[in-house]
Amino acid sequence: MAPVRPSARSTQVDTASLFHRIQSISQTGTTRLAYSPEDIRGRALVMEMMREVGLRVALDAAGNIVGRRPGRERLPPLALGSHVDTVRNGGRYDGILGVMAAIECVGVLQETGYTTVHPLEVIVFANEEGQQFGALCGSRAMVGTLGADDLARKDETGRTLAEAIHGIGGDPKHLQSARRKAGDIAAFVELHIEQGGTLEKARVPIGIVEGIAGISHTDVRITGQAAHSGTTSMQIRRDALAAAAEIVLSVQKAALENRCQVATVGQLTVLPNATNVIPGEVALTIEIRDLLQERIDATLEHLRQCREEIASRSRVNIEFFQRQPIEPVPCSRLVQDAIVESCAHLGLRFQRLASGAGHDAQMMAKLGPMGMIFVPSQDGISHSPREFTASGDCAQGAQVLLETILHLDEVLSGTARSDP
Amino acid sequence: MAPVRPSARSTQVDTASLFHRIQSISQTGTTRLAYSPEDIRGRALVMEMMREVGLRVALDAAGNIVGRRPGRERLPPLALGSHVDTVRNGGRYDGILGVMAAIECVGVLQETGYTTVHPLEVIVFANEEGQQFGALCGSRAMVGTLGADDLARKDETGRTLAEAIHGIGGDPKHLQSARRKAGDIAAFVELHIEQGGTLEKARVPIGIVEGIAGISHTDVRITGQAAHSGTTSMQIRRDALAAAAEIVLSVQKAALENRCQVATVGQLTVLPNATNVIPGEVALTIEIRDLLQERIDATLEHLRQCREEIASRSRVNIEFFQRQPIEPVPCSRLVQDAIVESCAHLGLRFQRLASGAGHDAQMMAKLGPMGMIFVPSQDGISHSPREFTASGDCAQGAQVLLETILHLDEVLSGTARSDP
Repeated sequence: MAPVRPSARSTQVDTASLFHRIQSISQTGTTRLAYSPEDIRGRALVMEMMREVGLRVALDAAGNIVGRRPGRERLPPLALGSHVDTVRNGGRYDGILGVMAAIECVGVLQETGYTTVHPLEVIVFANEEGQQFGALCGSRAMVGTLGADDLARKDETGRTLAEAIHGIGGDPKHLQSARRKAGDIAAFVELHIEQGGTLEKARVPIGIVEGIAGISHTDVRITGQAAHSGTTSMQIRRDALAAAAEIVLSVQKAALENRCQVATVGQLTVLPNATNVIPGEVALTIEIRDLLQERIDATLEHLRQCREEIASRSRVNIEFFQRQPIEPVPCSRLVQDAIVESCAHLGLRFQRLASGAGHDAQMMAKLGPMGMIFVPSQDGISHSPREFTASGDCAQGAQVLLETILHLDEVLSGTARSDP
Repeated sequence: MAPVRPSARSTQVDTASLFHRIQSISQTGTTRLAYSPEDIRGRALVMEMMREVGLRVALDAAGNIVGRRPGRERLPPLALGSHVDTVRNGGRYDGILGVMAAIECVGVLQETGYTTVHPLEVIVFANEEGQQFGALCGSRAMVGTLGADDLARKDETGRTLAEAIHGIGGDPKHLQSARRKAGDIAAFVELHIEQGGTLEKARVPIGIVEGIAGISHTDVRITGQAAHSGTTSMQIRRDALAAAAEIVLSVQKAALENRCQVATVGQLTVLPNATNVIPGEVALTIEIRDLLQERIDATLEHLRQCREEIASRSRVNIEFFQRQPIEPVPCSRLVQDAIVESCAHLGLRFQRLASGAGHDAQMMAKLGPMGMIFVPSQDGISHSPREFTASGDCAQGAQVLLETILHLDEVLSGTARSDP
């Protein structure tokens, strides 16, 4: 007879302990670019913490840190984790919370002396943010979509991704050994800050992620005619910036009309960009995100129609260049249900929402059932030193993560729930 | 008894000769930045041409080239000229035509053996374009508005304007000696390409400039909130670029509604300018040009009202910073009438228009009656190697310049017109 699940009281995540873990990582600064000396220091701290809670720590060939705790049976592991690299001038919670909460959960189980049926794996994915070499490098290697082209990519200093992976203890020559196949994990759950303002505004402590939005990037080149701003009459102008302004507003309007979840022009460059020259060329990028690919496609089709109208009225040429799209990834129903169950068990309100940002979890969905838990971000600010989530919110998220893992362990192994 | 004015036949500008002059200058390239080795080579060629037509050539303290031809009486000179410096990748006609036509006119008079009542001066102003050190340096020195601050300004290489002026043979320590006072010239006439498409479109060979537009520059800083483009809902965004797009379109609309002659946003910079970050800050510059200061002021006031509305709707902060304005300069009625008379005499159609671009002539207006003659620019293109005016149009412009000078010489000296 397998040991029964411990009581809620004995599996209580300690708010102060979790806060302390988050604090200690942030001592390495607010910029911890993947593969940098700061990242390496942060990873060393994480490995130390992992060992302290009894995890057997290993690096895979992609430089992902994998901490393992045996289960009662030889089953695929239940995996949980996130990342500790940051953007330039990033925050203290994005990624870090998910790793620290996972370690805290294992710490709680260690103290309780409870062994799950499935083995547990705490994974710290390498280079999630992708400020260099592209995002999700570690999780892409784990699902086999990081290729030789990626390994040859260079950062600003001329260092290749292969060299960077080698620098954190990975083995880029044998990257294939990091690869896992569908079914190799029992489930994957990632706790993350929302990075938006929805939960805070609704005063709801837990977000249950329904899926990770797909992303479409369209590079737009607008070609008009550069000309003297003093001598060229308004009637004969072919002003690339005025046309670009109409594109920017069409993109905003499309999302405000709820054609898609969000749509943004974040990047725009004017040529020649001189006070007294009518802009001859503008380059900008349209980003569209939604949980449904058909809504992304329909928004793009709508914007193509806007383009025709704007180009002919403004006498400019507007070209769209589609980048490789990132498709939406739905979260597993099984994991969502386990999170619902956990919230009910803990008496916590929740809200279902989409993740507008990409996460390693979207790669892990290729290996087994995947789910994500969100906690509120203050003022929706992220990727900034001003990023903040209250300790209590962090601890509640970690508690839901632990309950979810325990719940999935039972459901997936067919053992009975024995809580009062 | 003074000699009578020569017949129209004997004062015929030679199209081929003028074309050849323009061609020979353009052999020094399409980039002849003021004070550069290319500018110095161009100026040397010009001085050689001036001497060939009998002008006595001198440099003033600002480096302006002044070629003098004595008149029959000791009167203030009738002045004509323009500049030979260019913008980066400039054209073959902007400025150059005015200088070459002036030399050609003197050449015609020399061949004819005709001496005007007033002395003639052909002036080649130093640094009209102002790609470095600011525009109209030579003519500003001539009217006494180039100061010590200007002389201390540095270009990208750290060279001061004083050093640059010294490099072309000027005497920056005695800049005051270049200064002239009101009444020191009898009149100033500048032939220039239109740099717009108005004359070409109307198929009219001659433009009579009514005035040089005033210029207002407003630096605009829009401050919103940079945030993650995937996680920040459309409703809570404070998107600086979307607000900037509305400003750009308001500026365009103001001019299209004929509140002012032209209005342009030529310069716009986005921060942080990343595909996946909602723009937190945008800097742009609004330029307004018109012949009437009150129309410039009213347009600005209208845009300030637009600003209020856009800022409150977009939840962003929009600040306007006014630069020192350049006031409109009307052309002298006397010179305009002389040009009309000349066109009538030559049987050429003309159109009155404003100069949207600044010219040295606007400074010369402080010294005496000032006027400008425009000839068509193909496709309105200027400040580009594609700038083009047909030889015939150049020659007709030069012919009108010569007639205008001869006409002013008579009118201002009280001598009778004796043409058949």
